[in-house]
Formats: sequence, structure tokens, C-alpha cells
Amino acid sequence: MRAPAAVGDKLEDVDTPALILDLDAFEKNLLTLKESVKGRVRVRPHAKTHKCPDVAKRQIALGAIGMCCQKVAEAEAMVEGGVADVLISNEVVGAKKLERLAALSRRAKIGVCIDNAENLAQLQGDLDVYIELEVGMRRCGVEPGEAVVALAKQITKHHRFAGLQAYHGRAQHMRSMEERHAAIETAAQHVQHTKRLLAKAGIACPTVTGAGSGTYMLEVEAGAWDEIQPGSYAFMDADYAKNEWAAPLPRFEHALFVLTSVMSRAPDRAIVDAGLKASSIDSGMPTVWRRDGLRYSKASDEHGWIEGGPLPLLGEKLQLVPGHCDPTINLYDWYVCVRRGVVEALWQITARGAST
Amino acid sequence: MRAPAAVGDKLEDVDTPALILDLDAFEKNLLTLKESVKGRVRVRPHAKTHKCPDVAKRQIALGAIGMCCQKVAEAEAMVEGGVADVLISNEVVGAKKLERLAALSRRAKIGVCIDNAENLAQLQGDLDVYIELEVGMRRCGVEPGEAVVALAKQITKHHRFAGLQAYHGRAQHMRSMEERHAAIETAAQHVQHTKRLLAKAGIACPTVTGAGSGTYMLEVEAGAWDEIQPGSYAFMDADYAKNEWAAPLPRFEHALFVLTSVMSRAPDRAIVDAGLKASSIDSGMPTVWRRDGLRYSKASDEHGWIEGGPLPLLGEKLQLVPGHCDPTINLYDWYVCVRRGVVEALWQITARGAST
Repeated sequence: MRAPAAVGDKLEDVDTPALILDLDAFEKNLLTLKESVKGRVRVRPHAKTHKCPDVAKRQIALGAIGMCCQKVAEAEAMVEGGVADVLISNEVVGAKKLERLAALSRRAKIGVCIDNAENLAQLQGDLDVYIELEVGMRRCGVEPGEAVVALAKQITKHHRFAGLQAYHGRAQHMRSMEERHAAIETAAQHVQHTKRLLAKAGIACPTVTGAGSGTYMLEVEAGAWDEIQPGSYAFMDADYAKNEWAAPLPRFEHALFVLTSVMSRAPDRAIVDAGLKASSIDSGMPTVWRRDGLRYSKASDEHGWIEGGPLPLLGEKLQLVPGHCDPTINLYDWYVCVRRGVVEALWQITARGAST
Repeated sequence: MRAPAAVGDKLEDVDTPALILDLDAFEKNLLTLKESVKGRVRVRPHAKTHKCPDVAKRQIALGAIGMCCQKVAEAEAMVEGGVADVLISNEVVGAKKLERLAALSRRAKIGVCIDNAENLAQLQGDLDVYIELEVGMRRCGVEPGEAVVALAKQITKHHRFAGLQAYHGRAQHMRSMEERHAAIETAAQHVQHTKRLLAKAGIACPTVTGAGSGTYMLEVEAGAWDEIQPGSYAFMDADYAKNEWAAPLPRFEHALFVLTSVMSRAPDRAIVDAGLKASSIDSGMPTVWRRDGLRYSKASDEHGWIEGGPLPLLGEKLQLVPGHCDPTINLYDWYVCVRRGVVEALWQITARGAST
């Protein structure tokens, strides 16, 4: 796993495409989150975004209690990298995965979500078991109501019932604050209703966990969550930048870039060496950082089209803000960590491709 | 780099998501290509698609003369894996890449494309130098005409002028045969015109190389190409399956799948554990293999929505045909190679993420 640069290299000498982390902006984002939350909830950032124990350690140093993951393989990479407390904020189905999950629960504090009694019956190991509540994504999760109480009762027979996973992923990218407010308000009502039903049945609900970078202060203010799971706040991508950002949410800075070089020039276009295998386009094209006249208009697998002006020269390097940080990071093995134009560190993305 | 399965495992026991290669269909596709071409042109398949020396070796065993790559790092992985002849069908810009390219040219027969005299002046090493001709993609490449002759003359001063790279990528996915015919006909006129200008200037043009899976027989029949560069034919993805396929193009079979498990069920949907980090959605959603009533309707990072009926049960496995094979393969470290339901081999995708 050859590193793509060396400590001390200048940013302009890093070979392209490369995934660049601006450490000043990154560290500021971590502090901004901490200051916005003011200790009102626990912070459990999502490692599905960064996939890197070096990032996790910096989040934990600023008060995060542990990590979230979506996959057992991500959790394995985090535990391997020294993270002692991981919640898999997702269902784990299939005999092989459940064996690995049980093995992992002997090495670290591990939580997992369920939304189905059949899946619960298959769980082994020393696990914190959460029920995923369906709060508006229409993806996984149990509908709010008595079904949650019945499942929680079953959990307590053989496991620890740790609480509720209540994440409204769709709300994160609603553009207006008003839409996001309304979505989280509804989610909060589902959570409160379910907590009341659990309390009535005499079942303690130690933790409600959820929320992402686009809404988390709304969850904090709604008062129904004990723990938040933001991921993208550390990096900020072009899609999140399209959201309206207003109080109570603070503003985060772009800290993650794809460095790319112009590899071909024509009068009307510059072609760069970062296409969709270098910057994921599932949530739209990347934007060109601090070159207001330029637009990344189209991607093919290994090429990107830059239009506008003044066009960059052959060999010139540009920084792109990825459309969507999570799948972009998942294309790389390393963060090239840069401070004021110089490579300060290389962090390995050990959970890259960890999809099982 | 832990393998995701073991030889002898049953397909239904492979953990998910996994990238599955159906060896019978794959081998049939390689033969179909060979038989369609009938030796009328040389075959130089594109390794940007498969990124795997094990695939390359099987293509070479059936008569391919070597590989194409888009990136120096891909070419390095191919040479490392035993491929002796690689054409980088793309421009290589930047000091570090050009040094690596020169080093590689001491280990294997290496070709590269240029479209700019400034880039030509930077080339070092023992290289076959091709001029990329712009034939309709409006990406890289020199416009057909006297500019090509001028650049070819400059090449011959210090390097071998090996010929023309003439690839119409956009034509590959035009849905009707008629549109593709027209696009390749125009490209062929550009090639023929440029060859005449080169001949008039007394410059030999040893090879015209180009063409992809969606059009290659049109290039063969046009008679202007010496060498073809198909990649996806070995696998066939859902996007290529939307093309009209008719003579002179043969039909290829779906050989590449993403195996996925149902991880959550609701009355109206099954949620599977393969989202856009497991099957690239840049060219549309994957399709569900041999389950006609089912539709993969939406992807989030780690989840896919299956709608229609009858819906699969919790834990049930499905095979998805990726929307686009190239970026999907680039998400995985291994092909799980299966024949009649049993894992026969594991091939490492050594050029996965090789983007520099």
C-alpha cells in the first residue's frame, strides 16, 4: 500500500488525483461541532464517512465517546485501529457477519441495531442491542408504536436493550432549514411517543441515538436524543454546501479536496485527471475550489471537464470539492493531510472498501 | 488483503456484498469477441474495466496482444502481474507520472498518447508515442487535420511515432445501432483524412487503435482501425444491456454480479446490503438478475431498495447486474469467481484505486 506522497512534500508536488485533507479546516470543524453541542448530548461520529482510525482518534480526543459504523468490516477496522466503543447503526444479517460481530464483541464495546425478531434470534455475543425506529427514511426500522415495545421485551430476554436508533437520513439533504425542522420535529414526535410506550411497559430506554451533519442541532434542541452521529461535518462536501445553513446549526468549512491536474487543453475546455473514479458524482459534480469562474461540468470514468474561464493551463493543479464525501473517500487508500501547503501526515483509510 | 470467500464455497454462502464473476459466461464472452473479430484487427482489451492481471492473462491466452490502461498506476499493476505490452490510451501529464512512465518503459513495451507539443517535450523513456485524435468525444485529442501532421513530425525527432488513438467513447452508449453507425462513420472519416495527410507528408502511421464494446465491429467494418480496445464485453453491465444489439455486433452475456443480502423487510420493500458503495450508480441503478418482478429502485451509500414482487425474504440473497461495471469493479479488491454455483478462484483486483 504505497503512500501517495511524503511528509514535507509541497501540496503542488503531490501526484494527482489525490485526496487532500486540510488539517486547519478539519480541526476547526471538529471544534465547531464540540462548541455547538455544548455537552448537551454525547457525540458518536460516523466512521462510514471517514473510514479512518486516525480521524476517529482526533474526534475522540475532542470528547466523542466512540464511533458509529454501518458495516461489521468497518467496525473491525476501527477496533483494529484502537477504537474501544463502536455502534453499528445498522442491521447485521447473515451467519458469517453475525459470527464476526460476536467475535468483535469480545474485543470492544459493540452495539448493533435490529428491526426484526428473526434477526434478533440470530444475535450472539455481548452486544448492546438497539431497535432501529423508522422515522421518515422508509428504509430499515420498526414503525413507531407497540411493535417496538414487543421487540424490546424480546431483546431483554437474552440481551441488553440499549435504546433506539432514530436517524432521518433523508432530512439531512433537504435544502431549506424549514423542511429539515419539520422532518426532525416529526421524527422527535415518533421518538417521544415510542419512549412513552416503553416507559408504560416498564422498559428502560437508556439511549436514543441518531442525527447527521445536516440536522444534528435540531435533534439536540428537540430534546429527544441522547447521542448524535454526524459524519460529514468533519469534511463538508459540495452537496451539503447547497443546504441552507442557519442557527442553530453552525457553519463547517470545506476540509476535503480532490487534487487534480489539467491533462489536456482545448480553447473551450480543460480536461482534468479526476473523473468519477476519483470523485463520486452520485450527489452531483464536484466544484472547483477558489476558482470562481470555473465549473466542473461533466465526468467520465477517468476525466473531468472544466469549463468557464480563465481556463487553467496544461499541468496546472486544481482542488475539487467532492460532490459527496463518503463515497469519494471510499475510493482512496490515504488521506494526504496538508497544513498551509505542506504535507504534514498520511493517514491510511483502513476501512476503505469494508462493505461486508 | 483478506479474501472474501474460499475456493469450494457455495455461492449462497459467500458473504455480501461481493463481486461475483460467472466464469462460464465470462469465458464465453472472451470467445464471442474473438470469433466476431475473425482476426481482422488486433485485440488490445481495456484493463481500465477489469483492473486485474488474472483477467488480462485469459484475454491474452485467447489472442489479445496486450492491454490498454488509462493510468500509469494501472499499467504498473499490469506489468507487475506479467503483462508485457501496455498502451496507456490517455495523456500522461506531470513530472512524477512521467518519471514512473519512463521507468515502466524499461520493464515492458509501453505506449502512451499525446495531444500537445508541450507534453511531448516532457516525455522520457523508450515509448511508442500515439497522437490522440479528437473524433467526437470532445475530451482530449488533437482536431483532425494538419495539426496532427505537425505534431507527428515533432514526435519522430526523439521518439517512435506509433500511430493514432481514435476512440469515440460517447458513441458506445448511444442506444440505437443507427446512431452508433453514424458516429463511427464520422470518426472513420476523420481517421482516413488524417492518415492521408500523414502519408502525404511521408510519415508512416503504423497503427490506428480505438473502439469499445458498444461499437467495435463498426470500427472493424469501417476498415480504418488496426486494433480495438474493448473492455466491458467481458462482463456486460446493465447500461450496455440497454443498447440495441444487432449485427455486426454479437451479444455478450452478463458475467459480473454484485451478490447482496436482504437485511430488512417491510410490506412494500426489501432493503439489501449493497448500496452505491457496492454498485456504482453513475449510469443508473443495478438490475435484479433473474427475478423479473423485482426492481432495485434506489440506492443510498450502504443500502438498496428492492420493490415489486414477490419480495425476497430476510437474509435471502440476490444477484445484481451493476449499472456500470468499471467503477463498480473499482470498489472491490477481489473477484469471487464462480462456476455453476461454486467458488472456483479468487482473483485480486490489483489495480483497484490505481488512479495516478
